[in-house]
Amino acid sequence: MTDTADQVAALLERVQILEDKAAIQEVLTAYGPAVDSGDAETVETLWAEDAVYDTDIRVMEGRDAIVEMVRTRPHQDYINEGCGHLLDPVNIRLDGDTAVVTCHSLLLRRNLDADSFRVWRVSANRFDLARIEGSWKIKRRTARVLDGTAAGHDLFARASRSPATTL
Amino acid sequence: MTDTADQVAALLERVQILEDKAAIQEVLTAYGPAVDSGDAETVETLWAEDAVYDTDIRVMEGRDAIVEMVRTRPHQDYINEGCGHLLDPVNIRLDGDTAVVTCHSLLLRRNLDADSFRVWRVSANRFDLARIEGSWKIKRRTARVLDGTAAGHDLFARASRSPATTL
Amino acid sequence: MTDTADQVAALLERVQILEDKAAIQEVLTAYGPAVDSGDAETVETLWAEDAVYDTDIRVMEGRDAIVEMVRTRPHQDYINEGCGHLLDPVNIRLDGDTAVVTCHSLLLRRNLDADSFRVWRVSANRFDLARIEGSWKIKRRTARVLDGTAAGHDLFARASRSPATTL
Repeated sequence: MTDTADQVAALLERVQILEDKAAIQEVLTAYGPAVDSGDAETVETLWAEDAVYDTDIRVMEGRDAIVEMVRTRPHQDYINEGCGHLLDPVNIRLDGDTAVVTCHSLLLRRNLDADSFRVWRVSANRFDLARIEGSWKIKRRTARVLDGTAAGHDLFARASRSPATTL
Repeated sequence: MTDTADQVAALLERVQILEDKAAIQEVLTAYGPAVDSGDAETVETLWAEDAVYDTDIRVMEGRDAIVEMVRTRPHQDYINEGCGHLLDPVNIRLDGDTAVVTCHSLLLRRNLDADSFRVWRVSANRFDLARIEGSWKIKRRTARVLDGTAAGHDLFARASRSPATTL
Repeated sequence: MTDTADQVAALLERVQILEDKAAIQEVLTAYGPAVDSGDAETVETLWAEDAVYDTDIRVMEGRDAIVEMVRTRPHQDYINEGCGHLLDPVNIRLDGDTAVVTCHSLLLRRNLDADSFRVWRVSANRFDLARIEGSWKIKRRTARVLDGTAAGHDLFARASRSPATTL
């Protein structure tokens, strides 16, 4: 093999990693706009069929349960009153066909009696993603409100130490 | 053509796409700091000459009208009282020389009577960009407050379905 | 040298730049989760040994002083009451082994008497980073609250004009 062919083989691997990170970013940035507009069909495309969404309040097991959450109350109340589900820039640790992403999430809700919104929840988030039939999907999302208790702190501290291959 | 030459040709296309996404990110992340500091010259470089900025309140047609908005009230009042124009991570769908970007925007304003800020607006955003003489520019920004009405919901739902080539 | 070899050499440079931007993003997105969970060991890995963190209130000189801030009050009070340190998407201007990054930062604190958080600080930020022994590290962070005074406005306006090589 020539030097050039070796360099091209190495470049192919490096570009694949950059494309994987961009693809993961696309999945995660599609989520907020979809849940804020009640677009359950788009939400469905982002999760693996056996995905788990683990929150402070309840654990949703399976993609169908997650999509049902978007279609029902209290989520529909939030949408109808006015809300924004936002992330801050995501930290992606990629390991082949899996990835661990950490970030904050915000749930902003409109104040019905004032011309403004309130910060209702600020949460620590860990997303575990996997490449499934060529597409990146969310396998598990764990979110804990940063309310000063150990739950949110531990989630962030553990996520930053665990390899992407723990799933 | 050798296999290696074929691979290089494919890599050139893939790297161009990654660079385009990075360049679009640079344009959009330059916007908030520029409008928060009243830096109208930088704002001017980010928009196409025939750009349209379509908000809940009014439609600004042409880059000059957008730059004038930055230089005048009420925008200057927001700056002088203290404000932050923020985005959350952007979702980029690229199609050759055009792109559709969706994200949330926040307008945070300082409370004059307290040591804090308020979330004044949370909006759904669609940016249509185009490559013009080699540089990515904003051709149209549409923003709608997420106040529970159809305007914001429809903007997000339509943006996630429309191809980047609709402009 | 063949045409293909020339193209590969150019691709290597372009991919390196994209990887550098991704690596800088990883450093900056690791910061918030680390400070919110009091993970001083992770915070330590993100700064250069001679780093400076220059805020409205005080200037911390050296990595040890920055890590000490995380371990002590008032930062520990914020964590124990519930807080989130968030960034918005970062603007990266890369120049070889240095980079200038601009973005907003938010400090959200839990309201102890209500089921919500308040936006305590919205700041203009400039991060100066350098590649040190192969890893990107924060050399200097300058943050100024966007309180309507010149400090925040000037930081954003100067950062968008200065080359990455000013350090």
